[in-house]
Amino acid sequence: MKINNKHYRTIWEESNNCIQIIDQRKLPFRFEIKNLTKLIDFEVAIKDMLVRGAPLIGVTAAYAMYIAAYNSNNDNLSEDLRQSGKRLIATRPTAVNLRWAVDNQLNQIKDITKPDLIRETLLLNAREIANNDVEQCRLIGVHGVELIKQIAKSKNSDTVNILTHCNAGWLATVDWGTATSPIYHARNEGVDIHVWVDETRPRNQGAKLTAYELAHEKIPHTVVVDNVGGYLMQHGKVDIVIVGSDRTTYTGDVANKIGTYLKALAAFDNQIPFYVALPSSTIDWEIEDGVNGIPIEERDSKEVDFMEGIVGDFVQDVRIIPEMSKSANYAFDVTPARLVTGLITERGICKANKQSILKLFPEKK
Amino acid sequence: MKINNKHYRTIWEESNNCIQIIDQRKLPFRFEIKNLTKLIDFEVAIKDMLVRGAPLIGVTAAYAMYIAAYNSNNDNLSEDLRQSGKRLIATRPTAVNLRWAVDNQLNQIKDITKPDLIRETLLLNAREIANNDVEQCRLIGVHGVELIKQIAKSKNSDTVNILTHCNAGWLATVDWGTATSPIYHARNEGVDIHVWVDETRPRNQGAKLTAYELAHEKIPHTVVVDNVGGYLMQHGKVDIVIVGSDRTTYTGDVANKIGTYLKALAAFDNQIPFYVALPSSTIDWEIEDGVNGIPIEERDSKEVDFMEGIVGDFVQDVRIIPEMSKSANYAFDVTPARLVTGLITERGICKANKQSILKLFPEKK
Repeated sequence: MKINNKHYRTIWEESNNCIQIIDQRKLPFRFEIKNLTKLIDFEVAIKDMLVRGAPLIGVTAAYAMYIAAYNSNNDNLSEDLRQSGKRLIATRPTAVNLRWAVDNQLNQIKDITKPDLIRETLLLNAREIANNDVEQCRLIGVHGVELIKQIAKSKNSDTVNILTHCNAGWLATVDWGTATSPIYHARNEGVDIHVWVDETRPRNQGAKLTAYELAHEKIPHTVVVDNVGGYLMQHGKVDIVIVGSDRTTYTGDVANKIGTYLKALAAFDNQIPFYVALPSSTIDWEIEDGVNGIPIEERDSKEVDFMEGIVGDFVQDVRIIPEMSKSANYAFDVTPARLVTGLITERGICKANKQSILKLFPEKK
Repeated sequence: MKINNKHYRTIWEESNNCIQIIDQRKLPFRFEIKNLTKLIDFEVAIKDMLVRGAPLIGVTAAYAMYIAAYNSNNDNLSEDLRQSGKRLIATRPTAVNLRWAVDNQLNQIKDITKPDLIRETLLLNAREIANNDVEQCRLIGVHGVELIKQIAKSKNSDTVNILTHCNAGWLATVDWGTATSPIYHARNEGVDIHVWVDETRPRNQGAKLTAYELAHEKIPHTVVVDNVGGYLMQHGKVDIVIVGSDRTTYTGDVANKIGTYLKALAAFDNQIPFYVALPSSTIDWEIEDGVNGIPIEERDSKEVDFMEGIVGDFVQDVRIIPEMSKSANYAFDVTPARLVTGLITERGICKANKQSILKLFPEKK
């Protein structure tokens, strides 16, 4: 998608020994491109969250394996790659896509001995992983846009108001995003839309990233604090809610950024459709009860205590919770399937229940 | 209640020509007491929100009328008071308690001609208005604490977890507060309690004021962002929700700080009691349908765009929403009576419906 009128992906090949990314820590206050030319650059990029979002982390790791091979001499190549994979996985040990991408790369080359062919294979496979992610997100948009077009039709082409929480946007993937893909497709197809962007405390990914994306794509949007969604829904100001998902059980329970459950309750109370956009790779085929089964990460309370903003030209952290009080930082919540109208996947839209999900993914039966 | 181990009210008589208040704009980062000795001091205090909360604004206006009389010469006294009342009402034209307090003062003296008796009457009446507010808040606590004690009993004296939103604390009244009064009473009666404090974006009254109050009263509490409450309730970490109210219809619909409705939905979904503490002066005896009948103020979006915090010793505003995006700032929402377990008033606890409310206030039939 576009930033300053130029098309970008979140990661791309600048040359055969340089991968480039957007330093997402600096957004929205600074747009900086970073060169990744050595393994350590990739480790830092993942660990320090210059890149974030499961799909993007996976693609970054895949390219890291290629660059490690590029920089390795022929004699040590296979041992270097084994060590590089370990180092990459150690940067964020719980990131499933990261481990998957490293294993996938190692698997591609396990029967290849010629060093240059190994390098070429790793590059082509990294490229394919990136392109697959783009295609999956594009398909989520192709399916999801139909929901928005239906609403537009029922409103006689009046503006469709979409509410989203957190950033399930293109910045969390390679391009298109998940929850934002139907939005970008709707705009491309000329549907009149407006997006309510939840600020998404404590890390403000809505205000910082989703708003940034939409602003640069010139899509009308309004940032609101997380408390506002219920009011908007009570007063007919929201036609559909679309959010992403970090993990979805095969029974349709959705783990996503903290606060998603509250918006789902409000949507249900006001009979507003609540959809979750997700690539099927985030479906958990083991856990049945999401509320009790999915572990919720408790993160550093500093993320609550301090707020980053800009003063003049300077980015500044300010303490917003007095030191006499402690705070707690639960990162995700689980929205029970009963509150979810449907799931938008790369294969199509299904209801949030086992039967409907398995109908789209019969190979998982 | 206490700040730095010393008992305060939010407004008090320092001498016969000086009223003192806490400058609440500076909290929690600075504790500053302000002298009000001239009418203009009171106008600024109300207009610039050095004092906030309907009851406290009313009491401040009552004392302002006394100070205006104190400073006026005998010849112009009654005309000065008429003008002073107008100027006070103009500081926040929509504040019902402000107008009520001014009218109440003027009414007290309408048949008095002796200047010194006018001054004495205004002082005694201001004092009575303040004391009445304290007594009403105290009674809310006396009734509300029974709910907390019942829960403690059912938990075999294990910690009772209370969630509150915004600041319906003593800083919004003269003493005790509304939603916090049952909490302070519970602590005084030796009940083991812990309070979850919603940050309450965009003005952060929970993080700034409620947390400050509780910290200085040494009541265990944890600040959470507004997104967290649903998760806490799903996981048995909340036993009761108590919030305040800006306006409650005689049918039990509750207008309160934006986001209250979302917490009520989560409480209802998890069968957690949701109570609203309010002095009966905030009951609206005219409006039947709160959601559609109570107008919701849309405030300056700067309150969303900027965040105040502290850096070292300096209080600093930082911009947190990029300038390319606009924001909206709805200040209140309405929680339908069906989600409210009960109302805690100075006369006792009732259900959130017309019949039950009128049983407590039969004179309103």
